[in-house]
Amino acid sequence: MGGDRGPEELVAGAKAAANATGVPILVVGDPARLGNTDGLEVLAASEVIEMHDEPGSAVRNKKDSSLVRSAEAVRDGRASAMLSTGNTGAAMAAALLRFGRLPQVSRPAIATPIPVPGSSPTVLLDAGANADCQAAWLVQFAQMGSVYSRVRFGVPNPRVALLSIGEEAGKGNALVKEAHALMANSEDFNFIGNVEGRDFLRPVADVVVTDGFTGNVVLKSLEGGVGYMVDTFKKVMKTVATGESGPGLMAEVAPLLHQLDPDSYGGAMLLGVNGVCIISHGSSSAPAIANAVGVARDMVAGDVVDQLRQAVSAPAPGGDA
Amino acid sequence: MGGDRGPEELVAGAKAAANATGVPILVVGDPARLGNTDGLEVLAASEVIEMHDEPGSAVRNKKDSSLVRSAEAVRDGRASAMLSTGNTGAAMAAALLRFGRLPQVSRPAIATPIPVPGSSPTVLLDAGANADCQAAWLVQFAQMGSVYSRVRFGVPNPRVALLSIGEEAGKGNALVKEAHALMANSEDFNFIGNVEGRDFLRPVADVVVTDGFTGNVVLKSLEGGVGYMVDTFKKVMKTVATGESGPGLMAEVAPLLHQLDPDSYGGAMLLGVNGVCIISHGSSSAPAIANAVGVARDMVAGDVVDQLRQAVSAPAPGGDA
Repeated sequence: MGGDRGPEELVAGAKAAANATGVPILVVGDPARLGNTDGLEVLAASEVIEMHDEPGSAVRNKKDSSLVRSAEAVRDGRASAMLSTGNTGAAMAAALLRFGRLPQVSRPAIATPIPVPGSSPTVLLDAGANADCQAAWLVQFAQMGSVYSRVRFGVPNPRVALLSIGEEAGKGNALVKEAHALMANSEDFNFIGNVEGRDFLRPVADVVVTDGFTGNVVLKSLEGGVGYMVDTFKKVMKTVATGESGPGLMAEVAPLLHQLDPDSYGGAMLLGVNGVCIISHGSSSAPAIANAVGVARDMVAGDVVDQLRQAVSAPAPGGDA
Repeated sequence: MGGDRGPEELVAGAKAAANATGVPILVVGDPARLGNTDGLEVLAASEVIEMHDEPGSAVRNKKDSSLVRSAEAVRDGRASAMLSTGNTGAAMAAALLRFGRLPQVSRPAIATPIPVPGSSPTVLLDAGANADCQAAWLVQFAQMGSVYSRVRFGVPNPRVALLSIGEEAGKGNALVKEAHALMANSEDFNFIGNVEGRDFLRPVADVVVTDGFTGNVVLKSLEGGVGYMVDTFKKVMKTVATGESGPGLMAEVAPLLHQLDPDSYGGAMLLGVNGVCIISHGSSSAPAIANAVGVARDMVAGDVVDQLRQAVSAPAPGGDA
C-alpha cells in the first residue's frame, strides 16, 4: 500500500515481475484500493502505515496493516520474501519484530547498492537503520556486507572499506578509529582500510561500512547531486540537441543514465533479520518493482539469510548484543 | 609552498590577483622554488609542511615553514589574511595556534560554500575541523555560519538548517537531536529545522550545520559525484557533439559547469579564530587562487572576524569552552 505512485503502480510491477520471472506474487493490501489484481493472489489487509507514522508504534498498533501482514506472511512461510516501497522505518520494524534477529547479530543494517559506472555496485551499509552505532556493530556490518556483495553481485572476495575523512588508520571520529582497529584485526572479510566520500562511484571498494546516520546522509547527498546532474543533462539535450548529434549523444549517455538510476537496482535489503526484506524507493515505478522482485528471488535462491547467519557466528566484539 | 600544482602556479595566481584587484600580495615560501615573483613581495620560509605531515607536530616542529610564517605574518599585522592550498589540518593548526581563538568560541569550524545552481551557495560547516563534536559547538557553528553567509554572500537573514536523516525534530542521531533542541531555543539566528542530504544543490537553506566528520564525508561525496558527472558530460560532448548542436550544448551548459566548479568559490574559511584564514583545494589553479585572494580581501573589508566575535558573545550552552 506504500509508495508515492499508489498501489496500482505496485500491482503493475508485480504483474510484470510475475510474467517475466514466473515468481508467484502475493499482493498484500486493501482489495478495494489495489485496482485490477487479475492473476495475482491477494492477502487482504485493512490498514495502512503512512509515510509520516512513527515506525515502532505504527507496527504495534496497526496490526492489520499491509506491512505487518507482509512480514507475518514471511514468518509463517506463506511468502519467501517481503518487498516494501512504504515507510522505511516501519518496514524495518515489522521485519525485525516478526522475523526476529539472526542469533548473534547486534543490530540489523540496511545495505544499499551505489552504482559504479563500468563496474559492479558498491554496497553501502548501514544506510539508515541505526543512527547511533557502536564500533563492534560496524564489524558485523562488514561481515554481512561482504556476504551480500558476494551473493548479490557475485564478487568473489569483496573489498571491505570503512568510510572516513582520510585514508590513514588514525583519521576519523572516535567511532571510526575504534572500528578500524577491530576491523584490521578481523579475518572474516577482506578489509582494505579507509575510503573517503570522493571514492563513491569509483571501483575502489565493494563494501563501504559506516554508521546509519552518515550512511543515510551520504546516500541522499549522492542521489540528490547525481540525480540533479542527470536531470540537467536530459533537459539540456532535450532543448538543444535537436540537430544531427542529438541521437548520438543520447545513445552514448543512455547506458550511464541507466546505470545511475536507483530503479535499476531494485532497492535496499535489511541484513541481519531472519528473512528477506527488500526496501525500495517510495518513488519506485512498475519496472523498479519488477527489478526488486528479481532481487528478492535471487536472495532467496542464494540462501543469503543462511549465509549471513553463518557469517555472524559470534557475538560482536565487546558489543552489547 | 603547498598545492598539487607546485609553487609556481600559486605565484601565477597571486600575480593575477594583484593585477586584477590591486591587493598587495606577500608570497611566503622558499625563494629558490617560487620561480619568478617579479613585482610581489616575498617572505622567505625555508621549510615546507607536506600533505602527509601530521598537522599538530608539523606546526610545532617546522617553525620556519611557509604555513607557520604566513600565520605569524597575520598575527604580527604584516598581512591582513592568510591563504593556503596545502595541508588543511596544518593550516588550521597554524591559524589556531598563531591567531588564537575568538574569546567565547569552543571550537573553530571550516565553512565551505556548496554551489546552488541559480542561487547563492549554501555554507556547510563544519566541513572537517572537528571529527567529534558536542551539541553546544553546533550552536556556535550556526551563529558563525549565519554571519559568514551574510558577509560573504550578502544573504540578509540566512536560513540556518541542521543536517539530519529526516525533517522532523525527533529524527537524527543523539548529537543532532540534542543540537536541534538547543538551536530551536536560540534567537541568534534564523533556524529553519532539519534538512537532509538530498537538499544540497537546492535553494533550501543558506547555512547547513553538521559535525566535522559528516560534513567532510558529505562534501567529498558531493564533489566526487557531481565532479564525475561534469567530467562525463564534457567527455561525451567532446566525442559525440561534433555536429551542429555541439556549440549550442556547450553554451547552454557552460554557466552551470562554472557554477559547480569548486574553483569558482575561492575555497573554505576557518571561522572562530582571530584572523582571516582561507583554505583552498590542493588542486587550485591560478584563477582559483585569484578568486581566493578576492574572497580574503572581501572578508577583511567586511570585518568578518569582528562580526564573528560579536555573534559568539557568550560561552557555548553547557559547552566545555
